[in-house]
Amino acid sequence: MSAVAEEVLLARAYLMRVAEPPAPRLGHLVRLLGAVEAAERLRSGVDLGPHVGAEVGSRRELDRAADDLAAVRALGGRLVVPEDDDWPLAAMVGFDAAEGSGEWAAPLGLWVRGPVPLAGQVTAARRGVAMVGSRAATGYGKWVARDWAASFADHGLAVVSGAALGIDGEAHRGCLAAGGTTVAVLACGVERAYPAAHGRLLEEIAARGLVVSEYPVGAVPARHRFLVRNRIIAALATGTLLVEAGARSGAARTASAARALGRPVLVVPGPVTSAMSVGNHVLARDGWSTVVGSVAHVLADLGPVGGDTGEAADGPPRPTTPFDGLSTAAVRVHGALRTHTPQGPGVLARDSGVPPRAVDAALEELLAAGLVDGDGSRGWRAA
Amino acid sequence: MSAVAEEVLLARAYLMRVAEPPAPRLGHLVRLLGAVEAAERLRSGVDLGPHVGAEVGSRRELDRAADDLAAVRALGGRLVVPEDDDWPLAAMVGFDAAEGSGEWAAPLGLWVRGPVPLAGQVTAARRGVAMVGSRAATGYGKWVARDWAASFADHGLAVVSGAALGIDGEAHRGCLAAGGTTVAVLACGVERAYPAAHGRLLEEIAARGLVVSEYPVGAVPARHRFLVRNRIIAALATGTLLVEAGARSGAARTASAARALGRPVLVVPGPVTSAMSVGNHVLARDGWSTVVGSVAHVLADLGPVGGDTGEAADGPPRPTTPFDGLSTAAVRVHGALRTHTPQGPGVLARDSGVPPRAVDAALEELLAAGLVDGDGSRGWRAA
Repeated sequence: MSAVAEEVLLARAYLMRVAEPPAPRLGHLVRLLGAVEAAERLRSGVDLGPHVGAEVGSRRELDRAADDLAAVRALGGRLVVPEDDDWPLAAMVGFDAAEGSGEWAAPLGLWVRGPVPLAGQVTAARRGVAMVGSRAATGYGKWVARDWAASFADHGLAVVSGAALGIDGEAHRGCLAAGGTTVAVLACGVERAYPAAHGRLLEEIAARGLVVSEYPVGAVPARHRFLVRNRIIAALATGTLLVEAGARSGAARTASAARALGRPVLVVPGPVTSAMSVGNHVLARDGWSTVVGSVAHVLADLGPVGGDTGEAADGPPRPTTPFDGLSTAAVRVHGALRTHTPQGPGVLARDSGVPPRAVDAALEELLAAGLVDGDGSRGWRAA
Repeated sequence: MSAVAEEVLLARAYLMRVAEPPAPRLGHLVRLLGAVEAAERLRSGVDLGPHVGAEVGSRRELDRAADDLAAVRALGGRLVVPEDDDWPLAAMVGFDAAEGSGEWAAPLGLWVRGPVPLAGQVTAARRGVAMVGSRAATGYGKWVARDWAASFADHGLAVVSGAALGIDGEAHRGCLAAGGTTVAVLACGVERAYPAAHGRLLEEIAARGLVVSEYPVGAVPARHRFLVRNRIIAALATGTLLVEAGARSGAARTASAARALGRPVLVVPGPVTSAMSVGNHVLARDGWSTVVGSVAHVLADLGPVGGDTGEAADGPPRPTTPFDGLSTAAVRVHGALRTHTPQGPGVLARDSGVPPRAVDAALEELLAAGLVDGDGSRGWRAA
C-alpha cells in the first residue's frame, strides 16, 4: 500500500523515537524541512534551538529506526506517515489550528497493525465514534458501551477506543460482535498485550480492525502516555462519546482533545446517584458537549454516514466546495500557488500577501484539504 | 394584608369566572381600563370586539364574584390581584414579553390558601425551584425529587409544584420534611383534594405553605387546565427543574412555559435505559436547558439565594441598576413619566416617541420593575 521512500520511513521512525510526543516544535521543523532533512540535521548534531532541543532531549544519538521498522513489519504491521496515501489526513485536520497550545500537536507518524486502511476511517463520507470512559465502569456503563457500539457498527460507523479495561473493552467487543470495524489506539507498542487481560481482544482487533500507536514496538505504557494518546483517539473519530466516567477520568482528556480539534463531544447521561456518572454530568454542562439519550441522537449529531441519510440526517446535506472551511489566509496562499512550478514559502508569502509566519499554517490547511502538493524541501504547487 | 378595594376584588373575581384562562385579550383590556371598568363594560353587555368576546363566551352573564370571595374567605384564603402589594409582580415578569403567543397570558388574579405571602416567593433576593415530572415516576425519580427538595429547603429555596401523584408529591413532601416553604399550584379550586390521595398533603401545604389556583372555589380539574396551570408553576419559581418524565409528559409544558418566560430550565439526567428519562434527555438537547447532576449544580444555575453566596455562587454578583434588563422602549417611556402628575398612554407615547401600541408593554415592564405607579384608569406616574 505504501509507496513512501524507505529513507522517509527511516527518517520518521528515527524522529518518532527521538522525541516524546507531543512534539509540536519538531513537527513544525519537519513540515518546514521535510522528514529526511530534519532527521539529517538532528543526527548531525547541529544546534536546532532550545525549543526543538527540549523536545528531543538527549535522545538524538539514538537511531533505532531500521530495527523499529523491521520489528513492526515482523508483526505484519507498518509505519504510516504523512507522506503516505494511507495517512488519515482528514482526521488530522484541526491539529494545526489547536497546535498553539502545544499539547495538541499532530503525531509524526503512526505505527499500525491490521488489515484496514487508516486513511478511510475519518472522511466526509464515513463516520466513526470514539467511545471513552472509565476502567472502573458500572454494569450500566458497560451495557451501554457494548450495546451502542454494536448499533454503531450496524449503522456503518467505526468505533475508536483505547483498549483499556471497562468502557473501552466493551466498546471494542460490541463493535466486533456486530461485525464492525474497530480501532484501538495504544499508549505503548502495537505488539504489546496491555492490559494483559485484553491480549486476545487486541489480537482480534489487529486481525479485523486496526491497532495504532505513536510509540514504537517495545515501548512501554506510561502514565503520561495514556493522556497524550487520547488526542489520537479523538482525532481518528468524527466525534467523541463519553460513555461513563467518574469525577476524575482520563476520558475527560479525550473529550478536551475532541473539543480542541473542533469535533462534537457527546455525553451519555446516567443516574445522578451514581459516582461513575459524575464526570458525564460535569462535561454535559460545559457548553460544548451535547447529551445523547439514544443511538439515534448520536447518529443525528454526527451527521449522515455515506448514503445512510435516514434516521441520522437532520436535514439535506449542504453543497460543499473544496474551499469550505478554509481560512482566508489559506485561500489567498492557494491563489498564489502555480500548477507546475513548486514555490517556496517566501515566494508564496510575497505573492499572496499573507505574512510569512502564517504561510505554514495555511499550507497545512491546504494539505489537509488536498489542495496543495509538495513538501518543505521541494516546495509547493497546486494539487 | 390586602388593602385592595372590595370593588376591585369583586371585579377581578367576576372576570376570573367569566373567562377561561389563559385570556390574553381580556387581560389586555383590564390593563387598559382597570379591572372595575373592564368588569363594568362586560356586565353591561356592550360589544367588546370578537377577541375578548371569544374569551368570555356566553359566561358574561354569570356573576358569582361575591359568592366566590366568600367561599375562599370561609376557607381562610384570599384572592390576590395585581392591585395588591402581595401580587407576585417579579414572578409575572416575562408574561407580557411572552404574551404574543396568547397561551402565556398572565393570570387575572390568584386564589390563595396559606400563611405565606405570595409576593415574596420570587424576588431578586429569594429563589424558588419548580420541580416537575411524571405521575408514573420510578423509584429513582421519586428519590431524587424528595432528596433534592429537602436540600433546596435547607438552602432556603421554596419548592413549587403541582401536587400531582409521582414527582410533584415527592417534591412537596421532601420540602415539608426539611421545614421548607412549598407552593402547590392547582388546576381546580383551592379547597379541592385532588388527587384524593393527596388530601392530607394539600392540607399540610395550605397550613404551612401556599395552595394557589387561577380557578375559583368549586372549579373542577380538567385536562386542559393542567396544561394551562403549568405556566403558573413556572412563573412562581426562579427556574424549572424537570426531575423525571417519559417521552410524553405535561411536565415538558412547564419547561416550555419557563423558557417562554425567560427562566432557566434544568434537567435531571437519568439512565438511557429508562423510558421515564426519555423526556429529560430530549429536553436536555434543546439548546436552552442545562443538565444538573447535583443540588450544587442547581444552586449554581439559579444564582445565589439572599446572603447565601457560598456553594451556589459562580462569581461575584454584578452590580445592578433599576434599569437593567429593561427594553429601550421601557427606558424611554420612563423618561416621559412625571413624578406627581399621572399621564395617560397617549401623552406618554407622544413624549417618549415610543409607538402607542408599544406603550402598554413598556408600562408593564416598568410596573414589574417597580418604576411606575398607577393604572389604566388613573394614568401613570414615576414611582
